[in-house]
Amino acid sequence: MSDGSSARLAGVLRTWIATAPPGARLPSTRALVAQHRASPGTVQQALRALSTQGLVESRPGVGTFVRAVRTARPPDYGWQTAALGSPRARVRTVPPALRSAANDVVALHAGYPDRELLPERLVRSALARAARGEPALSRAPAAGLPELQSWFAHELGASAPVGTTPPAPGDTVVLPGSQSGLSSVFRALVPGGGPLLLESPTYWGAISAAAQAGVRVVPVPTGPDGPDPEELARAFEETGARVLYAQPNYANPTGAQWSSRVAQQVLDVVRSRGAFLVEDDWAHDFGITTTAAPLAARDDGGHVVYLRSLTKSVSPALRVAAVIARGPARERVLADRGAESMYVSGLLQAAALDVVTQPAWRTHLRGVREQLRARRDLLLASLREHAPDAHVEHVPAGGLNLWARLPDGTDVEQLVHECERSGVLLAPGTEWFPAEPAAPFVRLNYAGPDPGAFPAGARVLGEALERVRR
Amino acid sequence: MSDGSSARLAGVLRTWIATAPPGARLPSTRALVAQHRASPGTVQQALRALSTQGLVESRPGVGTFVRAVRTARPPDYGWQTAALGSPRARVRTVPPALRSAANDVVALHAGYPDRELLPERLVRSALARAARGEPALSRAPAAGLPELQSWFAHELGASAPVGTTPPAPGDTVVLPGSQSGLSSVFRALVPGGGPLLLESPTYWGAISAAAQAGVRVVPVPTGPDGPDPEELARAFEETGARVLYAQPNYANPTGAQWSSRVAQQVLDVVRSRGAFLVEDDWAHDFGITTTAAPLAARDDGGHVVYLRSLTKSVSPALRVAAVIARGPARERVLADRGAESMYVSGLLQAAALDVVTQPAWRTHLRGVREQLRARRDLLLASLREHAPDAHVEHVPAGGLNLWARLPDGTDVEQLVHECERSGVLLAPGTEWFPAEPAAPFVRLNYAGPDPGAFPAGARVLGEALERVRR
Repeated sequence: MSDGSSARLAGVLRTWIATAPPGARLPSTRALVAQHRASPGTVQQALRALSTQGLVESRPGVGTFVRAVRTARPPDYGWQTAALGSPRARVRTVPPALRSAANDVVALHAGYPDRELLPERLVRSALARAARGEPALSRAPAAGLPELQSWFAHELGASAPVGTTPPAPGDTVVLPGSQSGLSSVFRALVPGGGPLLLESPTYWGAISAAAQAGVRVVPVPTGPDGPDPEELARAFEETGARVLYAQPNYANPTGAQWSSRVAQQVLDVVRSRGAFLVEDDWAHDFGITTTAAPLAARDDGGHVVYLRSLTKSVSPALRVAAVIARGPARERVLADRGAESMYVSGLLQAAALDVVTQPAWRTHLRGVREQLRARRDLLLASLREHAPDAHVEHVPAGGLNLWARLPDGTDVEQLVHECERSGVLLAPGTEWFPAEPAAPFVRLNYAGPDPGAFPAGARVLGEALERVRR
Repeated sequence: MSDGSSARLAGVLRTWIATAPPGARLPSTRALVAQHRASPGTVQQALRALSTQGLVESRPGVGTFVRAVRTARPPDYGWQTAALGSPRARVRTVPPALRSAANDVVALHAGYPDRELLPERLVRSALARAARGEPALSRAPAAGLPELQSWFAHELGASAPVGTTPPAPGDTVVLPGSQSGLSSVFRALVPGGGPLLLESPTYWGAISAAAQAGVRVVPVPTGPDGPDPEELARAFEETGARVLYAQPNYANPTGAQWSSRVAQQVLDVVRSRGAFLVEDDWAHDFGITTTAAPLAARDDGGHVVYLRSLTKSVSPALRVAAVIARGPARERVLADRGAESMYVSGLLQAAALDVVTQPAWRTHLRGVREQLRARRDLLLASLREHAPDAHVEHVPAGGLNLWARLPDGTDVEQLVHECERSGVLLAPGTEWFPAEPAAPFVRLNYAGPDPGAFPAGARVLGEALERVRR
């Protein structure tokens, strides 16, 4: 190889680059060798020279590309400020619970179960089957695959008491994840700017969806047995609200499960106000010492609009959920979904249905119950030992989280920051309050990776709490 | 088998049923045989008796289930009328272009390409790979898989002229289909109740998304070369709009591709008004005699918000699309997507990326181009011969549709109905107009199943036209 020949080749390529669009791919080394009768070494030397001059960039294993011409001016999008005006809603882009974590941290912040809690074998074989079948290449109906609609309806109907008509398959609308359902249900049921009652604390995704749907959130305090029915009745009366959003089973973040009595009283209030209860049964598959008992199963008057997701229990890659609603409410939701996304990938629907109708699915769920119990108890014990000031007032009977109250006056943001510096991620409780937090809280997820690190994580939390309070 | 023993068994089961929830599954025949030491025939006789009494229903191959107690009253959801009030937007649930068709009809109404135009082998093997890989069980980042973001940015950047900075991978937000992008972009860029300029005619899905996003649509007439830039400037001025939605390449329904001159003039108008052009490049992969030339590639000032979908060209089951936007506009869109659906299935993203980065993808697209050309020409010839009054004023250089003008005064709805009775489905042009239609039109899709039936379909249309005009 001679420097002269590589410089000549670089010159030829420079001319080519001058007329090529930025991002254009250069011929492969092999092609350049053949075209220019040069040795591979010469070609590589020429490319290195061009790279040093900033004319090309090579991406290992992909190829070499013409670099974008960097204009001298930095981009100026200032004109967008006037064009965009104020945002319709202030929505956080990436909430703490969705942050990705490095491998070497103790991740107690996330909202998703770890890989080991997922039915990996079932998911992979279901996807492989779906890849070979009809759903890989066809469009699914707007309301979902009929078989999956039936499955969702049947799951809910199975716990309907005698005398209550269970939902029909046609009452189901399949969704690409339950977050999409929240937005659609709020848009469909609450007039623009109208009031929406929420438990406080409640799921941050619901607070986000409410902001995006342009509704006014009205917090209703809630406890380990559910909201106080009298407070709730007053909130309906004072605001004229017609919709309450709630998580009666293993609420996120508190883990509370409404008592049967409160559930009945809330239903009575909702009915007497001619209102809707949007029941988000997000943790249906995550009971530990009890089983989720959907309120929707007790209602055949169209008052409960029910959301159930498979994303967390089957796989975060199989984003499939459903809303079950009756009467005109269901039509409104379906119309909104049509305008929003038309239909849900039939491939994901078929694979999800395949997973949940395998006999091994029930076995898997029983295993998850035991794993969650062990993880919950380990995290509880770790906190008691190493961070006694992070007080879990209510041991959840299901779900994925502990909701720990901190001593009054604790600066939660600073605490979270301190823990993060020591390699422990927590979610500040602030995210779960539609209004001002009632007290300082953190949410600790016991379904994340590496439960063996729970004691170490609790120790970091305990020490950080001491430092922050000093 | 004795009648006595089957009656006894039926009695036992009746007691069980009385306390079981409707829809509960009875033990299998085999299990009943074992539990009650009865013969299979006895068990089946008992089940038949219960079925005759309306207590259970058996679904062949699935099992026997406790029947829902039919309450005497029909469901009354009348209270919902007051609770729901008027809908925020009047959105059609299932537009004609999404209707499913039986196998024995000539389906010229649909908006999706037929199976034979899809890269079936690539899709199936990509899905099989994805099913075995990491994406089957993990959560994708909110803005999409980085490799797929890069691919979308690179595809657009590849046609950027020298001196224009191509988009960066981080300017991309991956979407679960481009319909979701329309809703989000309109919500993100147009204030509630604010004006949105649309070409007329334009894609019905955009009209739907605009209604759902609560924006006011302002139609701007458009022709085979694009909208008249002066009309457009006037519309911006008169309404104070800051956003124009358009399909500059192979518009749906007309197939129009803007001339380079009009494209430049529209960009100039948009820039001078400090406005956004939402460019929906829906048919990027469906050029026939030309190639799609995105306007977004010419803009690095953040004025063009670009939408590109893979759903139609890869597979309707791989709902993956992207929006590319720069500056604060991109942040607004991402925030809306977060509140709406958090993230897109990484499995679908990985599989879509796999398909479009295979060498065979380019070969496939070349084949599609030839097939579309043949299909388009066959449908054109069929219309000329059998339905000369359905006049295609502009032969599209790409896309999936012919836009046929009918004689003035034709009752389009009646025509569509007449054709349907003869087994030919068409889409009435009315759907594509944001306001009153300029004239009677039908949209005829040449990408549907069985192009061999195009002559027969055209004959039915010709005859129906004669009957309707009589």
